[in-house]
Amino acid sequence: MLNILFSAQPARWDEYQRPLTEAFAKAGLQANLSRDHGPADVDYIVFAPNGPVTDFTPYKKTKAIMSLWAGVETVVDNPTLTQPLCRLVDDSLTNGMVEWVVGHTLRHHLGMDEHITRQDGVWRNFTYPPVAAHRPVTILGIGALGAACGQALHQLGFPVTGWSRRAKNIPNITCMHGDDGLRAALSDAQVVILLLPQTPQTENILNAQSLNLPARGAFIINPGRGPLIDDAALLAALDSGQIAHATLDVFRTEPLPATHPFWAHPQITVTPHIASSTRPETASMVIAENIARGEAGQPFHYLVDRTRGY
Amino acid sequence: MLNILFSAQPARWDEYQRPLTEAFAKAGLQANLSRDHGPADVDYIVFAPNGPVTDFTPYKKTKAIMSLWAGVETVVDNPTLTQPLCRLVDDSLTNGMVEWVVGHTLRHHLGMDEHITRQDGVWRNFTYPPVAAHRPVTILGIGALGAACGQALHQLGFPVTGWSRRAKNIPNITCMHGDDGLRAALSDAQVVILLLPQTPQTENILNAQSLNLPARGAFIINPGRGPLIDDAALLAALDSGQIAHATLDVFRTEPLPATHPFWAHPQITVTPHIASSTRPETASMVIAENIARGEAGQPFHYLVDRTRGY
Repeated sequence: MLNILFSAQPARWDEYQRPLTEAFAKAGLQANLSRDHGPADVDYIVFAPNGPVTDFTPYKKTKAIMSLWAGVETVVDNPTLTQPLCRLVDDSLTNGMVEWVVGHTLRHHLGMDEHITRQDGVWRNFTYPPVAAHRPVTILGIGALGAACGQALHQLGFPVTGWSRRAKNIPNITCMHGDDGLRAALSDAQVVILLLPQTPQTENILNAQSLNLPARGAFIINPGRGPLIDDAALLAALDSGQIAHATLDVFRTEPLPATHPFWAHPQITVTPHIASSTRPETASMVIAENIARGEAGQPFHYLVDRTRGY
Repeated sequence: MLNILFSAQPARWDEYQRPLTEAFAKAGLQANLSRDHGPADVDYIVFAPNGPVTDFTPYKKTKAIMSLWAGVETVVDNPTLTQPLCRLVDDSLTNGMVEWVVGHTLRHHLGMDEHITRQDGVWRNFTYPPVAAHRPVTILGIGALGAACGQALHQLGFPVTGWSRRAKNIPNITCMHGDDGLRAALSDAQVVILLLPQTPQTENILNAQSLNLPARGAFIINPGRGPLIDDAALLAALDSGQIAHATLDVFRTEPLPATHPFWAHPQITVTPHIASSTRPETASMVIAENIARGEAGQPFHYLVDRTRGY
């Protein structure tokens, strides 16, 4: 019998108790899921970074921490965390992200906002956008999420460039890496999509200098992490016309305060961290299967490399 | 030397003269393109339905009429038209349509309008849409345009049903046909996309009865032809909540008059016939290659079947 501790906010327990229990049974695990196991008895923790467990020291026999979140930057530097930590990588999370990213890319590509907001009875002459083949898109961050978005945009005809810290090779995506690669990847991009993890190296990766590299009038789409962008530099780039519009789903402070200038800026669309959500049914299956791997002596999937931070 | 008559509005001549001349040369045709050939000398007509030629009787030696438009319903019943008529089927037209249809499907699927129009500083709890796999889309009309849209939506995970008058078999699309098939295809659809040709059989295909078949709160997207929808029935279905929103690119009268109730209706988005446009460079290549086929004794592509009307 495995003792599995559930450590997340109370509302999550209501959502996850049944799907996790069913997923453990389906994966052939004898599991006792609870929010109240004594630390010394816990085999695995199903974990949200904003849940009650913040000190991992007493969890001496715990074999792994299974995150309910894809982003683990708020826990990865916790000095008490010595157990293996697994990120959540879930197909439904990937699919939701692809839908959001492709949807907002097409929205900006097609100039939809003018039609949505200006139903004034005037049948206007319309300047056709370039075809997708002439609208280069650059994705910073080509992990599971970024690569999936890149494939979907490629299918629609967009030329897709991807950038990552270390070299990658992904079909249908022109892959670049490192500092020189970043310059080349951003240069002349008409849409820039941010799907990098948040690390000291990626913070403010879009700043006053790098925001000058894309084509004039480019669009920024950030479903990644708020600190990837220097807020003040983005506002300046929007005001100068260098960037035409930014659609932002993530922020340095969430909820984004009502007084933050992003809300009122006519060239910014704020969405409330909705680009992709964990769905309990599918997330529970991913976690159960990963625990079953560990119990079968296989290496865990989605293990976080503490030196890289993701 | 082929005498090729250009019969379209004057603005089109400026756009097409160079691309057509270049395309004819590339296709190996000795062609004399003009707006002023005497009718008896014309080998081919490059034709827009709103251009000067309306009586085809004097074009006795003309081998084919090459339409610059995909939709030929305003010319197909012209009793003087005895020459072969070819529709325009152009990849860039198809690609543009796919971008517009996928973009507006994702817009409605993701509930984007709320975020675009309501940047009021309130970080709202958000009800996640179903994943695409749980959002069935039905396309009425699965010719070149409808089938291409269906493939792109399938790639994004939407279950796609397609309907046509006669039986078809298209990978990744659940194909239905005929009157019974129409009922089944519309039933429980959450997004209905209209890409049928306009014929006496398709006029008002969405009417007071058929608009009741989709799931309550469905979305209608019409980039096909205005008369496919009974305007009054659509307004009633929107007011009752049976249809949540309609995005319409085509209308019975274009430009849509400023006084038409569609403009002011909060659940209708009017776009000014922009879903897909003919691009002179690619359209010219398609027409030149089709003329070259005829000159080589091969059957024309995209020949209109006058008994079907498209």
